[in-house]
Amino acid sequence: MTTTILAANCNTDPAMTAAIAGVGQSAASAGTTVVGVTPAWGPSSAEGYVESLVTAAAVMDAVAGHGDPFDAVVMAGFGEHGREGMRQLIAQPVVDITEAAVFAACLLGHRFGIVTTMGSAIPGIHDSLATMGTAGRCRSVRAADVHVSAIGDDIARTADALEGTGRAVLADGADVLVLGCAGFAGLDVELERRLGVPVVDGVAVAVRFAESLVALGKRTGKTGAYAPRSADKEWAGPTLGSLRAFV
Amino acid sequence: MTTTILAANCNTDPAMTAAIAGVGQSAASAGTTVVGVTPAWGPSSAEGYVESLVTAAAVMDAVAGHGDPFDAVVMAGFGEHGREGMRQLIAQPVVDITEAAVFAACLLGHRFGIVTTMGSAIPGIHDSLATMGTAGRCRSVRAADVHVSAIGDDIARTADALEGTGRAVLADGADVLVLGCAGFAGLDVELERRLGVPVVDGVAVAVRFAESLVALGKRTGKTGAYAPRSADKEWAGPTLGSLRAFV
Amino acid sequence: MTTTILAANCNTDPAMTAAIAGVGQSAASAGTTVVGVTPAWGPSSAEGYVESLVTAAAVMDAVAGHGDPFDAVVMAGFGEHGREGMRQLIAQPVVDITEAAVFAACLLGHRFGIVTTMGSAIPGIHDSLATMGTAGRCRSVRAADVHVSAIGDDIARTADALEGTGRAVLADGADVLVLGCAGFAGLDVELERRLGVPVVDGVAVAVRFAESLVALGKRTGKTGAYAPRSADKEWAGPTLGSLRAFV
Amino acid sequence: MTTTILAANCNTDPAMTAAIAGVGQSAASAGTTVVGVTPAWGPSSAEGYVESLVTAAAVMDAVAGHGDPFDAVVMAGFGEHGREGMRQLIAQPVVDITEAAVFAACLLGHRFGIVTTMGSAIPGIHDSLATMGTAGRCRSVRAADVHVSAIGDDIARTADALEGTGRAVLADGADVLVLGCAGFAGLDVELERRLGVPVVDGVAVAVRFAESLVALGKRTGKTGAYAPRSADKEWAGPTLGSLRAFV
Amino acid sequence: MTTTILAANCNTDPAMTAAIAGVGQSAASAGTTVVGVTPAWGPSSAEGYVESLVTAAAVMDAVAGHGDPFDAVVMAGFGEHGREGMRQLIAQPVVDITEAAVFAACLLGHRFGIVTTMGSAIPGIHDSLATMGTAGRCRSVRAADVHVSAIGDDIARTADALEGTGRAVLADGADVLVLGCAGFAGLDVELERRLGVPVVDGVAVAVRFAESLVALGKRTGKTGAYAPRSADKEWAGPTLGSLRAFV
Amino acid sequence: MTTTILAANCNTDPAMTAAIAGVGQSAASAGTTVVGVTPAWGPSSAEGYVESLVTAAAVMDAVAGHGDPFDAVVMAGFGEHGREGMRQLIAQPVVDITEAAVFAACLLGHRFGIVTTMGSAIPGIHDSLATMGTAGRCRSVRAADVHVSAIGDDIARTADALEGTGRAVLADGADVLVLGCAGFAGLDVELERRLGVPVVDGVAVAVRFAESLVALGKRTGKTGAYAPRSADKEWAGPTLGSLRAFV
Repeated sequence: MTTTILAANCNTDPAMTAAIAGVGQSAASAGTTVVGVTPAWGPSSAEGYVESLVTAAAVMDAVAGHGDPFDAVVMAGFGEHGREGMRQLIAQPVVDITEAAVFAACLLGHRFGIVTTMGSAIPGIHDSLATMGTAGRCRSVRAADVHVSAIGDDIARTADALEGTGRAVLADGADVLVLGCAGFAGLDVELERRLGVPVVDGVAVAVRFAESLVALGKRTGKTGAYAPRSADKEWAGPTLGSLRAFV
Repeated sequence: MTTTILAANCNTDPAMTAAIAGVGQSAASAGTTVVGVTPAWGPSSAEGYVESLVTAAAVMDAVAGHGDPFDAVVMAGFGEHGREGMRQLIAQPVVDITEAAVFAACLLGHRFGIVTTMGSAIPGIHDSLATMGTAGRCRSVRAADVHVSAIGDDIARTADALEGTGRAVLADGADVLVLGCAGFAGLDVELERRLGVPVVDGVAVAVRFAESLVALGKRTGKTGAYAPRSADKEWAGPTLGSLRAFV
Repeated sequence: MTTTILAANCNTDPAMTAAIAGVGQSAASAGTTVVGVTPAWGPSSAEGYVESLVTAAAVMDAVAGHGDPFDAVVMAGFGEHGREGMRQLIAQPVVDITEAAVFAACLLGHRFGIVTTMGSAIPGIHDSLATMGTAGRCRSVRAADVHVSAIGDDIARTADALEGTGRAVLADGADVLVLGCAGFAGLDVELERRLGVPVVDGVAVAVRFAESLVALGKRTGKTGAYAPRSADKEWAGPTLGSLRAFV
Repeated sequence: MTTTILAANCNTDPAMTAAIAGVGQSAASAGTTVVGVTPAWGPSSAEGYVESLVTAAAVMDAVAGHGDPFDAVVMAGFGEHGREGMRQLIAQPVVDITEAAVFAACLLGHRFGIVTTMGSAIPGIHDSLATMGTAGRCRSVRAADVHVSAIGDDIARTADALEGTGRAVLADGADVLVLGCAGFAGLDVELERRLGVPVVDGVAVAVRFAESLVALGKRTGKTGAYAPRSADKEWAGPTLGSLRAFV
Repeated sequence: MTTTILAANCNTDPAMTAAIAGVGQSAASAGTTVVGVTPAWGPSSAEGYVESLVTAAAVMDAVAGHGDPFDAVVMAGFGEHGREGMRQLIAQPVVDITEAAVFAACLLGHRFGIVTTMGSAIPGIHDSLATMGTAGRCRSVRAADVHVSAIGDDIARTADALEGTGRAVLADGADVLVLGCAGFAGLDVELERRLGVPVVDGVAVAVRFAESLVALGKRTGKTGAYAPRSADKEWAGPTLGSLRAFV
Repeated sequence: MTTTILAANCNTDPAMTAAIAGVGQSAASAGTTVVGVTPAWGPSSAEGYVESLVTAAAVMDAVAGHGDPFDAVVMAGFGEHGREGMRQLIAQPVVDITEAAVFAACLLGHRFGIVTTMGSAIPGIHDSLATMGTAGRCRSVRAADVHVSAIGDDIARTADALEGTGRAVLADGADVLVLGCAGFAGLDVELERRLGVPVVDGVAVAVRFAESLVALGKRTGKTGAYAPRSADKEWAGPTLGSLRAFV
């Protein structure tokens, strides 16, 4: 029996989806297939509130319109909005890479820190920690000043930037580092070598945690916050057909 | 000199937009015009996470595509997502009715409580209070079990439901009550009469607070969380043309 | 119909009362009259706990003894004690400039910071934020090392000091600045020009927010923390005659 | 060598001062003299914000005007304002009975609860816990509906009321009870007998803790919040002569 | 390549160790071996602070003295002390079932609740949540009044007790339930059937999360809280030989 | 009538026990005898989680096996685990020097800071503050980089290290300093002289606070977290005989 996990990229860049799915597949168990999902609309990268909120809707739309069966969804937008909506939308387990990375970091160290892309992404990460309930374990969130779209242009330079910013985060009191962007996926090993601390790649961990929940037969709770929506609502707008029809 | 305030309904029901704009206009100063805005896409009412997140994107799209000048935006979706995105999108003051109602309640009492529509809306309100930073002042959030779409069907019955649930909230220790849905706008006076405590209608207060910020010449801060997005991003999707082109 | 707002200075310096009332009047709507109130006793300036607590009593005494009718009270002592007592004392809306400034800052930015006069005033401001429930939104409180009594001696030098300390507060992570003393009222525009971020003058905002509550017919909640005192208590002391007789 | 501790009643009722000083003296070590201090002005009892804030000023005035030397001050107003001001005013240790009772309760149990006089006193107690930093250890604060002035009228009835309300507090999850009024001083032993849990009388504990700090040669810190005021300020008002002249 | 996970029972009951290891093995992937570890000293069950703290030391001693290689440790004492010590002691990943269960619950619902054995275990669970940093997500912790040693005596009666207490926890606002004792391992499926919400068995989840960290090559951070101890300390006591010699 | 207080050293170094008991005796009232207790097993010093958790068990074992009567226990391991277990074990008052020092610091200043021995001890101190509920009053915890075992080797050098680190803590915003190791006991006066702020020695304060609780007849609450253990449990392990037999 195989497990299928959708790795939902938050932006519309298919190359990034492919990269995320690749890292996720590498991290997965033998029997797991990781399928990348790219939203049909929205920005080519998400680095702030406007883009984050648009992607939240677009990712739900994409997953709702996904024709094939799947066992879990990994939401591959670090610090981005939407995990609660996805949990209301579907019954399968939903693992946000922000949550997975933070929870893994809490298992590996006493205080963690986060390195993200641009300063504009930091406030949304703080909000995500606040509603997640783990803000007290975080010592700092810092930006490496690398645009999402530029991560892969010069991977050595990206690694250098993460190393430098990572050292600042460790100096803030962290003993474990979280990679604060899905685009950084796969860089954890190199950074562990450079920094000498555990470095958590949320995509990899989220795939493993999603597998874990699937293997144990767990489903999203549907008696409270994530109870299905009323079926009889009107929905306007051409692009949301799948979302409208889903429940 | 007149002030124009956009009152952005979060759902696609034009009747509700009209009602919100009407209450907002009644609450406004003589020189203020309140203009209702209805998203072009999304659900006919928002009562949970899926709908809330879709409306966040749709409301930004609607405001970005609004052709005429305006001085401030009131976001008339209680507990709904999106205020941070709107603040990044535009430079004019943005007042979420959740914030306005909560801040007014903190000025009028020591501990407040909220009555909303359906239980599915409660978790999102808690999240909104958490990121707003005022959760410690809130004693309880309760649902009157009135669907947004049914509020106006029998206004006396809605008032009765709010009164009953309001009494439970007061028994939880609140000395001021917040109406937890834009659709309840205009019911504050009747409920004050029945309950003997201040009852805050976020639409009315938000219009007044938005006027205040405009009158004082205040604009949204653009050096941190709400700095404008990079202009060169690709945007996919037919409905987001205005949003894409805005900055 | 006109609205009368009492702007209660916390110290006994009539020149500062006049300045506060002047800024408040400038900020007010056309139909509003701002009337300055000066306590009959207490210190000539409040920059720490002893003075703050004395002014809390003296300001209540002054407002209780105010002979003419009024519609709301603005408490013009930033970070000073007393707002809860005033809310118990009277039924009209009470707006502390600390609250008004903080709430406005939360509408204009994601994280705020405060510049106050002397270091001795900082702890009281932290306490005020703690009971207000918004401490989590504040990044730092710093002192410009300008005595209250010296603010007006050399306004250019005061502005320079605020600018320098303001830059340090912004470097702490704030994207909006709050002026942490009623004596700084009127300097917000100049500092916005210098710093490029929204700068909030609590006196101006408090007058506008108080007008808002009056216009909407709101009164302080009287069923809990602010229920009237028992009428039959003995009061000793010559200066508290008005306070004793008020209810 | 004897130790002199001022037990400062917060109200102007000399009988209550005598009762407080009596309980304090009974609780004290052999070498300690407890001297009651009664404010010269203010209310005959404090059961809410107005009265609490007036007593804060009046108690400082009374202690500042106390002619004889003393080694420490116990502030015998449970949940009342003023401890921070007293710490700025004098160099000797200052122990608020709220603090002493709460700290002792934290040593004797895992979660405490408080029984106070009237509901109007509860919000101020919550504020005191918030600035003290121990709110998380408190399970509930409940009122026995006994006016301060009526405590001694029928001591058996007062004990019955405390027992009943105390049982409700224990049912809220507390394993130690705090007497939330200086007027309850001396009732702890009887209530321990009835309820089977530790019952903390703040007056007794505060006297002991104050003795402890004196014995160890401790003084209030004067480099931060409690640094002395500037000496050159003007003070208006006949009753505050001692306060004005103190530093 | 196989993965070996030590499942460390916190008490000295070998039957419970066998049961825990059995549930863990059932939950594990094909290539994983779960090896039960029983402390050589300490209580036969842990239901409060004394026992919890003894087991923390005894479990470290048992793992330190474990002769065979292993890849990770699962600490199978719900709410018990010790995870931080184990993380300092060894370099392999350490997963406390309290953490694993809580993190999984946060992925499956919006607010969780916990059902434990006896009331005496509740305070330690609250402390564990406090240091873990997720207390804000927990709605209630309740005891089923089933002694650890009696869980297996009548498994139907245990399930009934968990169901009843679980319903109370759900009524407190939880939408996912956590089994608050390693001895409850294996009852999650039956309770899900009865209660209609996700029920999390920490042993099963912890094994899966430990596997995940091992598969991804993660190790405990050793630059901060969990840096190895100084090697040159004296250790007294016959039973702690292995612990003393470990580093 | 004399009072006997056990001062329980957390490590197995009898010289440190003697030093602690000596400082405690010097701080005590005339009628108090301070008796040092040394655990029979465990590490010669505790500077991190492994050692802290072992000492928690060993100290309970030592006190449980103490043959002579006593009136209270002072737990002389700063930031170490175990106070809750001791409170469950015995009925007499238990005062952890961490609690005593922090509570005294809260009475003497507005914000405190802590100087401890090694960086490895800092995380445990943060955890202790978190469960104690006073973390919000603490500005920083810093290590002087002095091993516990080296404190007495060169007391002048130790004082110099504390002074330097203490200045850094004061610069972090503290106005009172806490000595974060029982081994620092007795250095408070010298550091007060050098730093000009109150410096709190937890051993001295804990002895005084323990005396206070004894004098007032207080006992640990036994209806909740600290209710006695079930008597019928099996205990394995030769060294825990006294602990097993105690209740």
